[in-house]
Amino acid sequence: MNKISIAIAGYGNLGRGVEAAIKKSPDLELVAVLSRRDPASLEIATEGVPVISDKDAETLVGKVDVMIICGGSATDLPVMGPRFAKLFNTVDSFDTHAKIPEYFAALDSAARAAGNLSMLSVGWDPGMFSLNRLYAESILPEGNSLTFWGPGVSQGHSDAIRRIAGVKRGIQYTMPVENAIKMARNGEGAQLTAGEKHTRVCYVVAEAGADKEAIRKAIVTMPNYFADYDTTVNFIDDEEFLKNHAGMPHGGFVVRSGKTSDNKKHTIEYNLKLESNPEFTGSVLVAFARAVSRMAKHGMKGACTVFDVPPAYLSPKSSEQLRKELL
Amino acid sequence: MNKISIAIAGYGNLGRGVEAAIKKSPDLELVAVLSRRDPASLEIATEGVPVISDKDAETLVGKVDVMIICGGSATDLPVMGPRFAKLFNTVDSFDTHAKIPEYFAALDSAARAAGNLSMLSVGWDPGMFSLNRLYAESILPEGNSLTFWGPGVSQGHSDAIRRIAGVKRGIQYTMPVENAIKMARNGEGAQLTAGEKHTRVCYVVAEAGADKEAIRKAIVTMPNYFADYDTTVNFIDDEEFLKNHAGMPHGGFVVRSGKTSDNKKHTIEYNLKLESNPEFTGSVLVAFARAVSRMAKHGMKGACTVFDVPPAYLSPKSSEQLRKELL
Repeated sequence: MNKISIAIAGYGNLGRGVEAAIKKSPDLELVAVLSRRDPASLEIATEGVPVISDKDAETLVGKVDVMIICGGSATDLPVMGPRFAKLFNTVDSFDTHAKIPEYFAALDSAARAAGNLSMLSVGWDPGMFSLNRLYAESILPEGNSLTFWGPGVSQGHSDAIRRIAGVKRGIQYTMPVENAIKMARNGEGAQLTAGEKHTRVCYVVAEAGADKEAIRKAIVTMPNYFADYDTTVNFIDDEEFLKNHAGMPHGGFVVRSGKTSDNKKHTIEYNLKLESNPEFTGSVLVAFARAVSRMAKHGMKGACTVFDVPPAYLSPKSSEQLRKELL
Repeated sequence: MNKISIAIAGYGNLGRGVEAAIKKSPDLELVAVLSRRDPASLEIATEGVPVISDKDAETLVGKVDVMIICGGSATDLPVMGPRFAKLFNTVDSFDTHAKIPEYFAALDSAARAAGNLSMLSVGWDPGMFSLNRLYAESILPEGNSLTFWGPGVSQGHSDAIRRIAGVKRGIQYTMPVENAIKMARNGEGAQLTAGEKHTRVCYVVAEAGADKEAIRKAIVTMPNYFADYDTTVNFIDDEEFLKNHAGMPHGGFVVRSGKTSDNKKHTIEYNLKLESNPEFTGSVLVAFARAVSRMAKHGMKGACTVFDVPPAYLSPKSSEQLRKELL
C-alpha cells in the first residue's frame, strides 16, 4: 500500500502534535516540515525528514498528498491558507468562528482554481464539537444545544495575561460553572451567555517589586477577554508555576436536550477530557487529512469542512472491516 | 421546496416513533403506512395518511422517496429488507451485530439491481454509538473503546421473561456496573466481558399460584440471555408494575481512552439518556432517511451504513447555514 504523504507547515505546539499523531498512523508518512525559521536552526522529532524554508514551499508540489497548516487563526491562516490551497490539498484548524464564512470563500476560490481540496476548522471546537452539534440537532430538532469549555488552559487568555507589565509568567484556566451544567443536562439554560457558563481562573508569577493589585485589576477589567467573566487571579511563585502549570490540558462538552413528543425527553452529551490540547487537536487534524486525501482522489475540489466527510474516510480500515468491527 | 416523501413499513412502537419524528421535521412528509394487519383495523396518529396492506407495497413505487422499515431483526428484516430494497430507497435498524455482513450483502444486491439505495443498522447501537466508536478510534488509534448499555429496558430480554410459564408481566433493565465504568474512563478494562460490564435487573408479576422460585431459576439460568450475568429478579404486583414500569427508557455510552504520546492521555465519551427508546431510534432513522434521499439523488446505489453519510446530509439546513451556525 502506498502511504499517504503529509507535510506540516509550522512547527510550534500544534505542529509537534500533528507529528506525534502521524507516528501513530502506519498508513501515513511525514515527508517534510515547512518553517518560517531558519531550517538549519530547527531540530524536529522525526529522524530523516527534511525541514524546508517556508519560502521554498513550491519545491514540495507533487510530493505531498496533504499539507497540514499549523498556524494561528488571527494572522497566520488568513495568509497561509489561500497561499497553500493553490499548491496542495490542505487541512487547518481555523477557529475564529465569526470569520469562517469569509475564510471559507477565500480558501474555496484558491483551492478550486488550482484543482485542490482544502478543509478548514478541523480540531475539537470547531471540529468534533461542531459535528456533535450537527448530529444532535438533526436527531432532536426540538431542543437546546449548549457547549461548555474546560476545565482547561486557554492559550489566547494566557497570552493576554503575559502581555501585562509586571507579569513574569501567567496561565488561564477556563472553568465550566457547575450550576449551568446542571441546567444544560436538564434541557434548560439556552439563554446563558459564555460568561454565565464559565469562570476564568488565572495563576500569575509577578516580577520582583511589581504591583500585584495593578496586575489583578488589569486582568479582571480587560475587555473581551476577562471583563464579562467571573475572574479569579492567584499569585504564585516560580517553583509552583513550573511544577503545576506546565501542561496544556483542556476539554469540555456539548450537550443537547430535546423532546420527541410531548412527554419524552432525551439528552445527548459528547465529552472530551484532554491532557494535551495541541496533541489531541493534532490527532484530529491527522485523521481528517487522511479523509482529505481520499476525497481529493475522488475528485472533490474547493473548500470543505468536517460536515462534508463520510466518517468511513477517517479510518485506515476498509468499509468491510468497519462494518464488522465497529458497526 | 418539495418535501421528502417518507413511508413507514410496520406500525409498532418503532413505527410510531418514526411517525412522531416526522412531525418534528417540516421538510419531510409521511405519505403512507404499510402494515401486515388489516388496514381497516389500524388507526394511526397522523390524519389523512393512508394505511396500506403490506401485500400492496408495489402500489407505492414512484410515490415514496424513502421507505423506513420498522421490523424486528430476527425474522422481519431479513425478508422485508431485500424485498423493499427492490422497490424503494430504504432505511432500517437491523441490530443483529454478528449477521451484519450477510444482511449487507443481501440488501446490496437487491438495491443495486433495482438502482436503489438501502441503509442498514441505523439507530443508536448500531448507529450513533457505531459512529462514535469510529470517530474516536480514528482520532486515537492507540487506545481502548468500551460500550455500556443502560440503565434501560431491553425488549429482547423482557420478551424472554414473558415467555416463561407462570409469568404474567415482566420487564428487564440492563444496568452498567459502576466499577467497570470507572475502569473504562481510566483507559482500562479492555478485557471486560458484557457480563462484567452489566448486570440485569428483572421485575416480574407472577400468575396467581405460580412457583416464584421456579420462575426465578428459569430466568437466572437462561443461556445467552441471563446465565452469564449477575441477574436479580424482583416479584412485584400489577399495580406497581403498571405505575413504575410502563416506559421504555434506555441509553448508555461509548468511551474511548487513548494516548497521543507516552504521557498524554485523552478520554472521549458519548452519552445518551433516553426516555423512550423507540422514539429516539425513530428520530435517528428519520434524520438518516433525509440523508438517504439526498445520497440517492446524487446517484448512490446499493447498501450503505451510517459510516458513509456526510453529516451535512442529515440536516435540513444548507451548508452555508451549517457553517455559520454550528461549525
